Amino acid sequence: MEIHVPEDHPRYQSISVREHLVEAVAQNVVAPAGLIAHGRGEAFDYLCGEDTPPPALDAIAAAAACLLLARHPVLSINGNFAALCAEDIVKLSGAARAPMEINLFYRSPEREHAIEKTLRDAGAADILGIGDAASETVPEIGSERRRIDPRGIGAADVVFVPLEDGDRTEGLIAMGKTVITVDLNPLSRTARKASITVVDNITRVIPLLIQEIDRLKNLNKDECIAILRDFDNKQNLKAVLDFIADRLRSFSFEGE
Amino acid sequence: MEIHVPEDHPRYQSISVREHLVEAVAQNVVAPAGLIAHGRGEAFDYLCGEDTPPPALDAIAAAAACLLLARHPVLSINGNFAALCAEDIVKLSGAARAPMEINLFYRSPEREHAIEKTLRDAGAADILGIGDAASETVPEIGSERRRIDPRGIGAADVVFVPLEDGDRTEGLIAMGKTVITVDLNPLSRTARKASITVVDNITRVIPLLIQEIDRLKNLNKDECIAILRDFDNKQNLKAVLDFIADRLRSFSFEGE
Repeated sequence: MEIHVPEDHPRYQSISVREHLVEAVAQNVVAPAGLIAHGRGEAFDYLCGEDTPPPALDAIAAAAACLLLARHPVLSINGNFAALCAEDIVKLSGAARAPMEINLFYRSPEREHAIEKTLRDAGAADILGIGDAASETVPEIGSERRRIDPRGIGAADVVFVPLEDGDRTEGLIAMGKTVITVDLNPLSRTARKASITVVDNITRVIPLLIQEIDRLKNLNKDECIAILRDFDNKQNLKAVLDFIADRLRSFSFEGE
Repeated sequence: MEIHVPEDHPRYQSISVREHLVEAVAQNVVAPAGLIAHGRGEAFDYLCGEDTPPPALDAIAAAAACLLLARHPVLSINGNFAALCAEDIVKLSGAARAPMEINLFYRSPEREHAIEKTLRDAGAADILGIGDAASETVPEIGSERRRIDPRGIGAADVVFVPLEDGDRTEGLIAMGKTVITVDLNPLSRTARKASITVVDNITRVIPLLIQEIDRLKNLNKDECIAILRDFDNKQNLKAVLDFIADRLRSFSFEGE
C-alpha cells in the first residue's frame, strides 16, 4: 500500500524517509525492528532540530582522525545503514580505505543478499561478511553470538558501527576494538560504550565525515593523534545533552 | 524469525514490547509505519525515565473530567493502540461510556478485521467504524480524506484519539470536536493541536485514566467543570518539556 505524501506537507522529508524504509522492509533490506530503531532516531533528531548538533562536529573530526590512523579500519553495515546511505557508504569506504562488512542482528541469507545488492547497486565491489565468510564470533551479552568475518571486523583495530545495538558495541569493545558509532540517542548504551560517538543523523554524518577525512589527509600523523587525544567522548555526550536541554527549555507554545 | 530476549537483559521490557509489535505487524494489526511511530515514542519514554511525568497526572485528571462531561465521547482506535492495550481499551470504554471506533491511517479490510478480532478477544462487543459503517469523511491536510462512522466519531463531541498523527488531530479539531490525545512527544503537532494532551506511555495512561474516571464519578458536575477549566494544555506541555530538560541536565556519565 503506497501513500505518497505531498511535498508541501510540514513533515515531507521525514515521511519520505519513512516510506523508503517501509519499502526496504518489503525488500528484506531492513528488519521490522529496524523501523522501531529508526523511529527512536527520528525523535532525537527532532529534538536536535533536525540539524547537526555543534558537539557532533568534534566527534566527526575525532572519527576521521581515528579512521586515518587505523591499521585496519572496517565499516560494519546493517540494514538501516544500507537503506539510508548506500552511495555514501561506498564513498566513505574509499575515502577511509575501510572495507565494508555486512553485519546483521537479524541475519538470514535473504537479508544478506538484499543488502549486498543494495551496496553493489551503489557501486560497491568487495563486500565482506557474507555467508560462510562470517566464520568468527563476537561474544555478546543477552543475545546469540554474532558472526564476523576474520578478514574484516575479526582483524580490524577500528570498527565504524553506526546505528548499532548496545550488546554489539560492548562485544566489540570487549574484543579490544576501537568502536566509532553514530547514534542519535546520546544516552543509549551504544553511545555510552563506544570509543567515539557521533550524535547526529547518519544521512548528514557520512558526507561530513568524508569531507573531514579529506581535510585531515593533509595533516601529519601527530596532528591527527592530537585531535584524537583532545577528544573526550563522555564530555561530548554531555555537551549534546546540554544542547538538547537548552532547545527544550527555549521552546515556546505561544502564538499557536 | 523469533529472537527471545533473556529476562535479565538491561532492556528486557522494552524489547519484549518491540517483539510483540513486530508480531502484530505480521498479524496485520499494526502497520509497518506504526513501528516507526512506536520507536519515536520509545525515545521520549526513555527521556521521561520510563515513568509518568508529574504534569501528565494533571492532564489525565482533565481527560477524565472531559470524558465524564461529554455528551457523546468516542474512543478512536488504531493498530498500535489495539496491539498495546486491548484489554484496557475495553475497560476504558465501559468506564467512560465511550464506544470504540476503529479508525486507521492505513485502512484495509484485512487490518480492520485483525484489529476487530484483537478487541473482541479482549472482550469488546460493539465496535464502530468497520467497513461501510465508516461512511463519513474528515477533511485533512496532506492526506486522503479519512473515513469515520456517523454513529461514532461523526456524532461525537469528545474524541479520545491516542497515538495519532497531526493531520488527523487537526481535522477533528477543525470539525469542532474536543480532542484528547496521548502522545509521548510533547512537541508533535498532535500534542500541540489537541485540546488535552497526556504526555506519557499509553500502557501506563489507560489504567491511570480509568482510576481517575472512577474517582471523579463521585464528584458533582461543577467540580469536573472546574478541573477542566483549570487545565491549560500548553502550560502542561511546557511543564513536561521542563521536566525532560531537567532530567537531561542532571544526567551524569561519571563512573561508567
